[in-house]
Amino acid sequence: MEKVCVLGAGSTKYGKLEDSITDITLQASVDAIESAGIESKDIKAGYISNVFGVADKQVHLGPVVMSNLGISDRPSLSIESACGSGSVSFREAYANVAAGFYDVALVAGVEKVTHTGTEWTTTYFSYCSDFFYEGQSGVSFPGLFASMARAYMNEFKATEEDFAQVAVKNHDNGLLNPKAHLRKKITVDDVMSSAVVASPLKLYDCCPFSDGASSVILCNEKFAKDHGANYIEVMGSGRGGSSAALQGREHLTTIPSTKIAAEAAFKMAGITPKDVDFAEVHDCFTIAEIVDIEDLGFFEKGKGVEAVREGQTKLNGQISINSSGGLKSKGHPIGATGVGQIVEVFDQLTGKAGERTVKNAKIGLTQNFGATGASCAVHIFQSV
Amino acid sequence: MEKVCVLGAGSTKYGKLEDSITDITLQASVDAIESAGIESKDIKAGYISNVFGVADKQVHLGPVVMSNLGISDRPSLSIESACGSGSVSFREAYANVAAGFYDVALVAGVEKVTHTGTEWTTTYFSYCSDFFYEGQSGVSFPGLFASMARAYMNEFKATEEDFAQVAVKNHDNGLLNPKAHLRKKITVDDVMSSAVVASPLKLYDCCPFSDGASSVILCNEKFAKDHGANYIEVMGSGRGGSSAALQGREHLTTIPSTKIAAEAAFKMAGITPKDVDFAEVHDCFTIAEIVDIEDLGFFEKGKGVEAVREGQTKLNGQISINSSGGLKSKGHPIGATGVGQIVEVFDQLTGKAGERTVKNAKIGLTQNFGATGASCAVHIFQSV
Repeated sequence: MEKVCVLGAGSTKYGKLEDSITDITLQASVDAIESAGIESKDIKAGYISNVFGVADKQVHLGPVVMSNLGISDRPSLSIESACGSGSVSFREAYANVAAGFYDVALVAGVEKVTHTGTEWTTTYFSYCSDFFYEGQSGVSFPGLFASMARAYMNEFKATEEDFAQVAVKNHDNGLLNPKAHLRKKITVDDVMSSAVVASPLKLYDCCPFSDGASSVILCNEKFAKDHGANYIEVMGSGRGGSSAALQGREHLTTIPSTKIAAEAAFKMAGITPKDVDFAEVHDCFTIAEIVDIEDLGFFEKGKGVEAVREGQTKLNGQISINSSGGLKSKGHPIGATGVGQIVEVFDQLTGKAGERTVKNAKIGLTQNFGATGASCAVHIFQSV
Repeated sequence: MEKVCVLGAGSTKYGKLEDSITDITLQASVDAIESAGIESKDIKAGYISNVFGVADKQVHLGPVVMSNLGISDRPSLSIESACGSGSVSFREAYANVAAGFYDVALVAGVEKVTHTGTEWTTTYFSYCSDFFYEGQSGVSFPGLFASMARAYMNEFKATEEDFAQVAVKNHDNGLLNPKAHLRKKITVDDVMSSAVVASPLKLYDCCPFSDGASSVILCNEKFAKDHGANYIEVMGSGRGGSSAALQGREHLTTIPSTKIAAEAAFKMAGITPKDVDFAEVHDCFTIAEIVDIEDLGFFEKGKGVEAVREGQTKLNGQISINSSGGLKSKGHPIGATGVGQIVEVFDQLTGKAGERTVKNAKIGLTQNFGATGASCAVHIFQSV
């Protein structure tokens, strides 16, 4: 196996974007290529992460992206794993570079949905649940995560105010990220007084629907050494699954796929959760971040909420969680999200994170899941 | 690199199916698992090939498929590359097994669209073109392939009757395939008198929209030897790309991605086109099959039409092309198509092809592309 590096990273702003799905993918990819100091012709394959290309009338995005980059002869494909598509796409590119099939690959994640309106997005996103058991019964994702939140409150004496702290922290971080969707300072009171979406979750417990594109360039170590001054290494990569429907799980306060993926990634990296300096985790709802940081092993089960309460997950706290602002504030363009997490890790570990820099960070982790965690991928990176 | 084998294969009938997208995927996958003589728990990862899950309200198919197979903890993902999704999914699974990431993987291709009606399918399929240049101008796939057909007629003195011969041959083969969609003998006159869709292509020059699912089990050689009496080996695998829009190509009578993919696959296999006994090729329109068999090197450029005229591509002719009936008669459930081609090769090389058996066949090839060939994958298999 070859050692795999991330040589460049780029991203559009997340939010409501006017340009087409193909244009924003191109913008992020050109940024990544320039950041890597390579030319597009160095790229041997393209991995596109996207869920609802139909929303902007472009499916089969790969050849369009490659053609726009002037490398139409190169193979490409699109990967979908709901909200976890980005990290799964990265994993496939990683596997192919590690195995020596390509020396350089592009991973581009993108989503363009805000123009369709809330009814379209809510309906189509529900197709990412186990539709037979969940979506068609009217249970959409806020309801499913509300069930997890209620179970967590019952089991571990957490309060709605505790969940609100996650939103407040991530908005604080997002304020320092020029590319974040919701750059607005909020308070616990703001969260508590926002409209109830699915009790106990309120509007400010939920991430937004966003447009956006994020791209990274992967390569083997030889190429990285030859071409890039600033690159990071992939230390570990793991994937896992959970029952597609929430009703098939034994517990509502843990996501099995995260634990499986994390165990594999830590094993490959040869480190433990204590060695991680910062992490981008999947906070589609505030409760999710608390469950994530426990499943990843940063805190014991039931103790994640205490860590949040005590500010241990704030920027430059014990472990910085979602320095980018996370899905909650940075935004959640679903196909782009998992790739965007890796962009944040790249920026942090190569000194490009500006005001939101995690001090002395050497090791960063990303965790990104699909639906209620039916699929998950975890990646661990280190500076060189 | 590990040697990769196909240990089992299964398929639903192609056509208009009543069961849900998840049910037909399960049916084909259980068939493949039984054919392989393994248990579902032997499968370490699932690769789902699908384009329009939205049509049956189920995106994020991977975890649903894995949950239905009782292996919800295993990683899965969906891959889309338009009509070439199936062969690209196989390629990703191949790469992961070859690299040693998994010893056994499932590839399941599926599409369920006929219930949506022709307007929906035509509209949504046009999103697989380069929509900015093609789809939004009203150029759908019959029009694009008609341009290729017209160019081929001009350049190589082919006639509409020549194209019709492809349809007649593939219907003859499909009659021998119990799982084919259009099992109906047709004549050149039938083709010539069918409704004009996009001149010179008529209705019987076009493959149908189909529902269907096809699955295969891949594994490394050690697992195959330990578990299966009947398996085949992957000799070669190649991928390539072409300009997404047809207008970006230098010639209309060749598909660059096929040539690139075939060259890579033949190089890996260490054989030449002359060594191939039969091939499943992408005959979405009759003209496509003629272009394919030239681009794959079975016949010189401009000579494919003569081969068809002389019956060289008939079952047990010089080289049997589309013994299954091809997309034209067997049907074209887009996400399933490329996987279904591999099911046919498996059945042929393991003595399960019944009346349509290619005699003394040892080496079979599959070629499956997306859109007008913007993406393509070629795989070569041999009996053991």
